[in-house]
Amino acid sequence: MFDVTRYATEAQSIIDAGRFLYDRGWSPATSSNYSSRIDANHVAITVSGRHKGQLTDGDVMVVDLEGRPIQSSCKSSAETLLHTVLYQVFPDAGAVLHTHSVNATVLSRLMAPGQAFEVEGYELQKAFDGVESHEGRLSIPVFENTQDIPSLAEQTRQWFQNYPEQPGYLIRGHGLYTWGKTMADCLRHVEAFEFLFECELETMRVSR
Amino acid sequence: MFDVTRYATEAQSIIDAGRFLYDRGWSPATSSNYSSRIDANHVAITVSGRHKGQLTDGDVMVVDLEGRPIQSSCKSSAETLLHTVLYQVFPDAGAVLHTHSVNATVLSRLMAPGQAFEVEGYELQKAFDGVESHEGRLSIPVFENTQDIPSLAEQTRQWFQNYPEQPGYLIRGHGLYTWGKTMADCLRHVEAFEFLFECELETMRVSR
Amino acid sequence: MFDVTRYATEAQSIIDAGRFLYDRGWSPATSSNYSSRIDANHVAITVSGRHKGQLTDGDVMVVDLEGRPIQSSCKSSAETLLHTVLYQVFPDAGAVLHTHSVNATVLSRLMAPGQAFEVEGYELQKAFDGVESHEGRLSIPVFENTQDIPSLAEQTRQWFQNYPEQPGYLIRGHGLYTWGKTMADCLRHVEAFEFLFECELETMRVSR
Amino acid sequence: MFDVTRYATEAQSIIDAGRFLYDRGWSPATSSNYSSRIDANHVAITVSGRHKGQLTDGDVMVVDLEGRPIQSSCKSSAETLLHTVLYQVFPDAGAVLHTHSVNATVLSRLMAPGQAFEVEGYELQKAFDGVESHEGRLSIPVFENTQDIPSLAEQTRQWFQNYPEQPGYLIRGHGLYTWGKTMADCLRHVEAFEFLFECELETMRVSR
Repeated sequence: MFDVTRYATEAQSIIDAGRFLYDRGWSPATSSNYSSRIDANHVAITVSGRHKGQLTDGDVMVVDLEGRPIQSSCKSSAETLLHTVLYQVFPDAGAVLHTHSVNATVLSRLMAPGQAFEVEGYELQKAFDGVESHEGRLSIPVFENTQDIPSLAEQTRQWFQNYPEQPGYLIRGHGLYTWGKTMADCLRHVEAFEFLFECELETMRVSR
Repeated sequence: MFDVTRYATEAQSIIDAGRFLYDRGWSPATSSNYSSRIDANHVAITVSGRHKGQLTDGDVMVVDLEGRPIQSSCKSSAETLLHTVLYQVFPDAGAVLHTHSVNATVLSRLMAPGQAFEVEGYELQKAFDGVESHEGRLSIPVFENTQDIPSLAEQTRQWFQNYPEQPGYLIRGHGLYTWGKTMADCLRHVEAFEFLFECELETMRVSR
Repeated sequence: MFDVTRYATEAQSIIDAGRFLYDRGWSPATSSNYSSRIDANHVAITVSGRHKGQLTDGDVMVVDLEGRPIQSSCKSSAETLLHTVLYQVFPDAGAVLHTHSVNATVLSRLMAPGQAFEVEGYELQKAFDGVESHEGRLSIPVFENTQDIPSLAEQTRQWFQNYPEQPGYLIRGHGLYTWGKTMADCLRHVEAFEFLFECELETMRVSR
Repeated sequence: MFDVTRYATEAQSIIDAGRFLYDRGWSPATSSNYSSRIDANHVAITVSGRHKGQLTDGDVMVVDLEGRPIQSSCKSSAETLLHTVLYQVFPDAGAVLHTHSVNATVLSRLMAPGQAFEVEGYELQKAFDGVESHEGRLSIPVFENTQDIPSLAEQTRQWFQNYPEQPGYLIRGHGLYTWGKTMADCLRHVEAFEFLFECELETMRVSR
């Protein structure tokens, strides 16, 4: 059993996040899915296939950390397990956002198999929790896209158990996953990633 | 005779679509035209030459499936037949949107005569009705532009009778046509196409 | 003497145009100037140096067709004569807009001295008054920038007496001038030009 | 002691500036910091780490010209000294804005060590105080990024004592600093710089 008021609060944070992310063009055409932790065993998450700029209370449901619907006959996002794995691996994760921008899609397709997305020397790297200087290197993995979500969930579990300091990942041709202690932290991470993606692409546009 | 309340509802969906599409920059300078099905024989469609971000009730009229005005002295879009042919070919089409974005225009001009616009490996291909995986190939034709609309309408009729699975088409230097069971489906298709156009152009910008 | 109500109406059309053009990014940093005809001898025009997205009634004044202030101690735009010459050359011009977009600026700087900006094959060319097909060629001149406005005004007068069918012009590194029978027509011309500028630049970005 | 009403007015100008700059994408992910002069010895400045599009009264504090908090237990921006040095060097500076756009970041990283950002021939150069023609050359320095703010503050002090006519500077991979007699002037400078950055990058995109 979960606290209903806590659910309502988390649902609202998801609805608001959706409006922001859709308006920025990062969640087009009913793509993307978002979640926010209710307690140690429950997560509020978007119902499958909804318009992310027009979410209402009926578009957010509850699942447990194995991704099973709780007190709901709705179908949660097809990628629910990618969310719940992150809540399992990171006990202090309070929110997970999967976005689907043009830039994340294009960059992820340009990278060679096994190649990570890496940047250094950007002041904005400090937007990630625990980063205090522009001098380090930020590295996140790019996983191959698949419709076999349980398999991909397992890959990400193993990866982030080994590399817990990495604040997100890409799926090729598919988008970004990132998380944070709060929804505000998580949104800041999305903004920071999108800033870095745009900087890297712009550099490629003018430097070739 | 058509149901007037149904007409009013469809007209409102067109007005709202216009505001959205104009704000995204996909229907500039009075370009574009939109329609929504009222019943088996009638379609609500934009009056010729109106500002698509400022449509009001007087800017939407009714035509039959041969494109003739019904209970109206207004002139419907010059491209009315391109709409009505689609309602004839696809009995379950509920809305048709023609948009006129920079990206659709540029891409359509870059393609060789007879070459289709094709993509594969994008998760967002799943935004099109009936697509369940990123692994297939999406292909849509590019027709040559002409001011002879009856001739172009006939070309599109023949094409989509042969290739009913393709969810849209381009006209060179002119824009996109797409359709859907509902206006919401059709708008999702526009967003998905524009996402894919931008991904392909961005890849060209950084990869040459 | 001019009709005050007509002045107030034209001033409001300028204020509204400014909000639109600034929001699109086409009139940044107090650049640009706008005018609207009151009668055969009077023009409402923006006061020099104002923020174009925040115009109020006090930011629009009246000048005669020689650019002299009428019933006002304000200073009109430094480029007032570029406006009044157009009202002299085109008796049916009802509005003149000078905008200052990144794209107009960059394109105008890329063109060789004496080279015109030319496009063909775009359906959107039909947005210009009197154009009925995409098949013609649109051509507009690029003048060298100067702080000597009377001299530039005289150049434009002579040019458009010879080429009255051209719907606008560029000044190198400085922006676009276009006009129309009404403010709505003139805004449609701005949108059409900006669409074509973006198409041409995008083609250059991906085609080199 | 400072005048509290003056503080409240300056704080509001900072809050409004933040909303504008964040909406333009120039202050993402809690980056950037802003200040506005209260009197000869006091400056209102943003508290460290706040969301710049959602600033409220509690997010602006007061420091003296050595950067010490006055009547406040908050922590001001880590870059406070970069602001206060400018108020010391320029007695008529009324506002300082540090922004963090993609374009400023990318351009600053592209430039060789010691190379200045320079442009000429743009009409928009006249947006900077004291510039009367497009014919001059605008030049601003690019400093290396560092987490040692007192050292960078000292570098900028010495630079602008020598080159007081330069209206701003870049920090590599980090963003723009500019100032003005009023907040409106300072915002106009930000807009003008961003316009010029975009023009230069666009020229690079299409000209290589």
